[in-house]
Amino acid sequence: MKAIVATEPGGPEVLSMAEVDPPTPGVGEVLLDVAATAVNRADLMQRAGNYPPPPGASTIIGLECSGTVAALGPGVTGWEIGDEVCALLSGGGYAEQVVVPVGQLMQRPDGLDAVHAAALPEVACTVWSMVFDQAGLAPGERFLVHGGSSGIGTMAIQLAKAMGAQVFTTAGTEAKRQACRELGADVAIDYRNVDFATVIADETHGAGVDVILDTIGAKYLPGNVGSLAFGGRIAVIGMQGGVVGELNLGALMARRGSIYAAGLRARPLEQKATIVAGAQAHVWPLIAQGLVRPIVHEVLPLAEAARAHRIVEASEHVGKVVLSVR
Amino acid sequence: MKAIVATEPGGPEVLSMAEVDPPTPGVGEVLLDVAATAVNRADLMQRAGNYPPPPGASTIIGLECSGTVAALGPGVTGWEIGDEVCALLSGGGYAEQVVVPVGQLMQRPDGLDAVHAAALPEVACTVWSMVFDQAGLAPGERFLVHGGSSGIGTMAIQLAKAMGAQVFTTAGTEAKRQACRELGADVAIDYRNVDFATVIADETHGAGVDVILDTIGAKYLPGNVGSLAFGGRIAVIGMQGGVVGELNLGALMARRGSIYAAGLRARPLEQKATIVAGAQAHVWPLIAQGLVRPIVHEVLPLAEAARAHRIVEASEHVGKVVLSVR
Repeated sequence: MKAIVATEPGGPEVLSMAEVDPPTPGVGEVLLDVAATAVNRADLMQRAGNYPPPPGASTIIGLECSGTVAALGPGVTGWEIGDEVCALLSGGGYAEQVVVPVGQLMQRPDGLDAVHAAALPEVACTVWSMVFDQAGLAPGERFLVHGGSSGIGTMAIQLAKAMGAQVFTTAGTEAKRQACRELGADVAIDYRNVDFATVIADETHGAGVDVILDTIGAKYLPGNVGSLAFGGRIAVIGMQGGVVGELNLGALMARRGSIYAAGLRARPLEQKATIVAGAQAHVWPLIAQGLVRPIVHEVLPLAEAARAHRIVEASEHVGKVVLSVR
Repeated sequence: MKAIVATEPGGPEVLSMAEVDPPTPGVGEVLLDVAATAVNRADLMQRAGNYPPPPGASTIIGLECSGTVAALGPGVTGWEIGDEVCALLSGGGYAEQVVVPVGQLMQRPDGLDAVHAAALPEVACTVWSMVFDQAGLAPGERFLVHGGSSGIGTMAIQLAKAMGAQVFTTAGTEAKRQACRELGADVAIDYRNVDFATVIADETHGAGVDVILDTIGAKYLPGNVGSLAFGGRIAVIGMQGGVVGELNLGALMARRGSIYAAGLRARPLEQKATIVAGAQAHVWPLIAQGLVRPIVHEVLPLAEAARAHRIVEASEHVGKVVLSVR
């Protein structure tokens, strides 16, 4: 089969199409014909050599896809060859075929084509697990997501809004902020020219926000803690702004606050299956109702994976960049 | 009535007995004749001027007591004059009488005298709310409490052990470590001479602990994060080792870890009432069964509050120092 391989760690130029052996589904796994896959920031880190796949995972890049079931491994029930699906992967998405544990397989939601379904698994599962399952964002609460125009951001804004929260976000250009507002953000903050924590304090009359979804990490830790309401929760899922930050425990304690940090990829299979089931139960109905949709910035053929990485690296996109495989 | 007052912020010498007006119970409050009260580290901070009482609270020091119901405010049901109780206070315990919101009143547990009942509310409510209700310590999990010989530590060791956890603790002298072991600690770490995180890693074969109860704060933040198991939770309730610490979000994320920070005193009345009800439901039966008991280091008359503060400040005690009022 054809797949994108990285000849060595490096820039987008190390990515090229190659002929590789197709994978074989093991016990409890399903083989998919990949229709489309989507680019995640973690893919760029893996390409650069900074995010090795977990033990046992494919060395091919790619954390999510849409496609059809092509073969069932031993012991798999509940799925049939030809089923239209999307999937959360531990790797291997940039290829014509991929093997996925059955717990990470999801029905393609009604009304989504293969391109949009490929852009859904990572953002739906990440936002569901961190913002709702873990941090328990409730109707009427205030929610802040940093980087509102990212794939995660565009999904988080829509989901939080659909669940009845008041939504604050940050974005670096007026075009991105406008896109965030159109998706449902109540307040879109120009973080390059104003201090987001000051805006949050002003807009909430000092009350702060109940849940923060953060991809920046160290750099935003003081501002995030300072923006928390009583009982507020910070969910950190990325560290684009550094790994080691300053935590004011007094400020956290004064707010009775919590900080969680987690990713999806390294979790045990059972946990991933629980998250996938939760996302399908809670997010899929909102997609079917037309309240939430994955936002696709651009679709490129798989062969142009390098160009797709350059687009994501430049951070000028809104939503996800998708690679069409067939 | 007689009460201990602080003439100005300062050392133990500012504390003296004085005649003050007795308090009057308002709506939903109960007046207690105080039998005994116990010294908390927060009392020392309040005496020094660093921990002002929350709005509306008594300016008299004292966060817990035992006693008998002397009068009921308007709207109070379920209690009668003469009931033997203990209570979580927002202040006012170092006095012959104190007023307490009815939600913070607890029946004196079967088998405890007034001295031991006075030593129970803060530690039972704090450990219950942070370790069990918030952090969800489960049977078979590993638990670390810093300062195992403190009032909080002695209660946390016993409760965690009674709930079926494996218990690690730190203490500064061999006598204290021996006391911790007698209360049920599986491993008592000499934090002055060895790195606690190294011992935790060795003893758990690198797996780490599931829940940490911490009173040290900033100084221990890196070691606490480094000692966490997958899915581990850190509950910070004190900052004896500094307020602003270094948080490695990468290390926290690799463990899918959580950090909570909270105290009891500044919470809204409903939250306190919920915590008090939870502690009574889950801790009182263990006391009745003789599995858990408040540890009292020494009992002094209320007039010797200054000496009691010096004992706690010197940190040579095991458990609580109690002031007998009548």
